[in-house]
Amino acid sequence: MSKKVSFAVIRRLPKYYRYLDELYEKGVTRISSSTLAREMGLTASQIRQDLNCFGGFGQQGYGYTVEKLRNEISDILGLNRQNRAILLGVGNLGRALINNFSFERCGFRLVAAFDISPGVVGTKINNIPVYHLDSLDTFIDGNPPELAVLTIPASETPDMASKLEKLGIKGIWNFTNRDIRSEETSLKVENVHFADSLMTLCYMINDKEE
Amino acid sequence: MSKKVSFAVIRRLPKYYRYLDELYEKGVTRISSSTLAREMGLTASQIRQDLNCFGGFGQQGYGYTVEKLRNEISDILGLNRQNRAILLGVGNLGRALINNFSFERCGFRLVAAFDISPGVVGTKINNIPVYHLDSLDTFIDGNPPELAVLTIPASETPDMASKLEKLGIKGIWNFTNRDIRSEETSLKVENVHFADSLMTLCYMINDKEE
Repeated sequence: MSKKVSFAVIRRLPKYYRYLDELYEKGVTRISSSTLAREMGLTASQIRQDLNCFGGFGQQGYGYTVEKLRNEISDILGLNRQNRAILLGVGNLGRALINNFSFERCGFRLVAAFDISPGVVGTKINNIPVYHLDSLDTFIDGNPPELAVLTIPASETPDMASKLEKLGIKGIWNFTNRDIRSEETSLKVENVHFADSLMTLCYMINDKEE
Repeated sequence: MSKKVSFAVIRRLPKYYRYLDELYEKGVTRISSSTLAREMGLTASQIRQDLNCFGGFGQQGYGYTVEKLRNEISDILGLNRQNRAILLGVGNLGRALINNFSFERCGFRLVAAFDISPGVVGTKINNIPVYHLDSLDTFIDGNPPELAVLTIPASETPDMASKLEKLGIKGIWNFTNRDIRSEETSLKVENVHFADSLMTLCYMINDKEE
């Protein structure tokens, strides 16, 4: 597990995790690499290669034990650590994430949200307290959560990223439509781009027409 | 442009488009493949390979004309077609998309939303009318929009996908946390998984600690 795994493989692990977890929930106990490959739209050889990177839990002629492989992937990703997360910007998207998104499943505990609107500051949403953004420093007070979820206006993104970096946050899950680039920050960042998948879909739909 | 481009390349086109559009907005007129590569975290050779797939607009020692390359990618993706889209499920996420997401930029015109809640049916959100889900068939009436955005509860996803397929919809942008698999439907589907990027971020944050 301490073995270095390439980032391209790491990027595929959540997808493996999702499928294996689904299988586990359905009561499936083992799966062959060829079935897993078919389910996931990959080749069996790619799957074997990927999973060999961290020990190769498969057994010739038997396949993989679903629960064991799922748990091993969860360990590699660190999903059991339940690091603390805060959410900044309680608009529609922020609210949707607080209400409907399972942070726990992805390795985080959402502990608080922040906004500036009097209508929402002081309330609780899905049991998560919403504080005024001005109290962020006091809230953190030398004990920064690991993650900040950014659902603030795009124009405020660069300043907020600098601020969060100074406060000791480690990572940003960025929904703001304003990328935070690696050269701008030492933070770990995932910029979420809804648009990319819709543009791809645009191609697929039009492609079929031709 | 009618040349067949591999789907792996197509998947990267929205990212190219985003960067080129940003450059264009900043007034940059040309860019070398090495600079574009650095900006995008790819290798210059991969960029040249990708862009060669559809004609290779670069010129030795000159690079790419930003506007031309951006427009060409837009044409390949079909972003100018402005196909019609409807959105099903006006909860927080649906509302966030209606209010803040630029469908036009991704090749679609959002024309209507549907829900069952009396509080929202009959209203307009960001100028988009919200109708009762029962009136979906009447609304479509032999002239189906190309795209349905699904922000309904996960449990309703399979039935809704079948219904949309029968109604003549071509593609689904699926936010429901219940994947629609290619073996379940003839529709083009993009399943959006917020969780994947957060799980990757979980790894990155924990990896740094070790």
